[in-house]
Amino acid sequence: MRYLLTLEYDGAAYAGWQRQKNAVTVQEKVETALRTLLGSKTVVYASGRTDAGVHAAGQAAHFDSERVLDKERFRYSLNALLPDDVKAVALREVPSDFHAQYSAKKKTYSYRLYISRTPSPLRRARYCRITPPFDTDKFLAVLALFEGEHDFKAFGNTGSGVKTTVRRVYSARAEIADDEITVFVTGNGFLYNMVRVMAGCAVAAGKGKIGVDDVKAMFSTGERARGIKTLPANALTLENVEYGLEPIGV
Amino acid sequence: MRYLLTLEYDGAAYAGWQRQKNAVTVQEKVETALRTLLGSKTVVYASGRTDAGVHAAGQAAHFDSERVLDKERFRYSLNALLPDDVKAVALREVPSDFHAQYSAKKKTYSYRLYISRTPSPLRRARYCRITPPFDTDKFLAVLALFEGEHDFKAFGNTGSGVKTTVRRVYSARAEIADDEITVFVTGNGFLYNMVRVMAGCAVAAGKGKIGVDDVKAMFSTGERARGIKTLPANALTLENVEYGLEPIGV
Repeated sequence: MRYLLTLEYDGAAYAGWQRQKNAVTVQEKVETALRTLLGSKTVVYASGRTDAGVHAAGQAAHFDSERVLDKERFRYSLNALLPDDVKAVALREVPSDFHAQYSAKKKTYSYRLYISRTPSPLRRARYCRITPPFDTDKFLAVLALFEGEHDFKAFGNTGSGVKTTVRRVYSARAEIADDEITVFVTGNGFLYNMVRVMAGCAVAAGKGKIGVDDVKAMFSTGERARGIKTLPANALTLENVEYGLEPIGV
Repeated sequence: MRYLLTLEYDGAAYAGWQRQKNAVTVQEKVETALRTLLGSKTVVYASGRTDAGVHAAGQAAHFDSERVLDKERFRYSLNALLPDDVKAVALREVPSDFHAQYSAKKKTYSYRLYISRTPSPLRRARYCRITPPFDTDKFLAVLALFEGEHDFKAFGNTGSGVKTTVRRVYSARAEIADDEITVFVTGNGFLYNMVRVMAGCAVAAGKGKIGVDDVKAMFSTGERARGIKTLPANALTLENVEYGLEPIGV
């Protein structure tokens, strides 16, 4: 039997999703709890790695069980074993050929910014601060460029094994409230660091350091424009992963 | 010269506002930084204590300086000395008879709740979780009772030196979004723990443990109804303190 977990985690204390020697990771926490419940070593396969410090509201990961699980009971037991900063928010059965990474159709990430001269203690855990002056229209103009199918080579830190750097971004939009800007990006896949570099480009535009043409040039040349930062991990959240599965009742 | 600081802090690491022996407090952090900048021992007087773990988006506190301060420069220097979880978001000059506690006209607190079967890692720092079933209408009906002038004796942990337990609540309302309820309460003053007990009453009503009549009886008898909890500190934030001062430009 194959099961799909939806996981929420606060990434602050973790060296990311993926199991590593000499570092605490979310995968290790989940696998340890599953091993205790299922009685044998269990591997969880996530939709993708999240980097050190990155959060998830809806990471997806599958695992196999030899026995049929009472889903709500199992999830409750799993949460009792998991630490406070990692919880399973849903559990469902999936077909045996389902794969959390390869079956994923869309992923949505958020990136949280605020514009202020003063660092905000209450937002320091999950936001990236931008100092004024800041031109929100220029920020939004660059954000809009990301929609569509593009070669994002200049936006990713290409690791080994990436076959193509072309990705489709279905939506790149922002919610603006007071001094806060939350960016939501939905795509069919993301290169390593891609959302943090995209946010860095839009911020650089808002700060007047680059313009729309510089970003267009990044698509055509595959070279990152100067002065583009990979923004900090703490403001990035994997919001959800879509598989086109039938909705389940709660 | 008397100055009024507006302070934002994450209360998680502090034993509250007020200076104590053998415990780290926000007052101590601010006074230590002020002493460094002003060159002599400086006492800060807050609008009131916040309890251990309680946050502030706009605590107000005054102090005296023998020299005239370049306000924005001073605030910048102060923030450089303060820890990441305490920052001065504003600084203004006030008359010499101004007092952060006694001149306060209104205070607003917020209390953050979410209704969920599962603990939420990303909300654990600043929210209190309520398990379903929960009747939001009953919650709101009790919340509305708090508006007006009442004897809040049953809602406060009366410390020494409280002359009267009558307080005026100007507004008690809630913002509801998805599974979250944020309560905002504005009043001319609050007894110790009063907002956390008020929130506890409204939650007990939402859970069907008490009704509107029980809360009315609390006003008339001064006795707390059974089963009312003082909700946790981590979800409480002192949002702002109003003095009726002239607005200042930014």
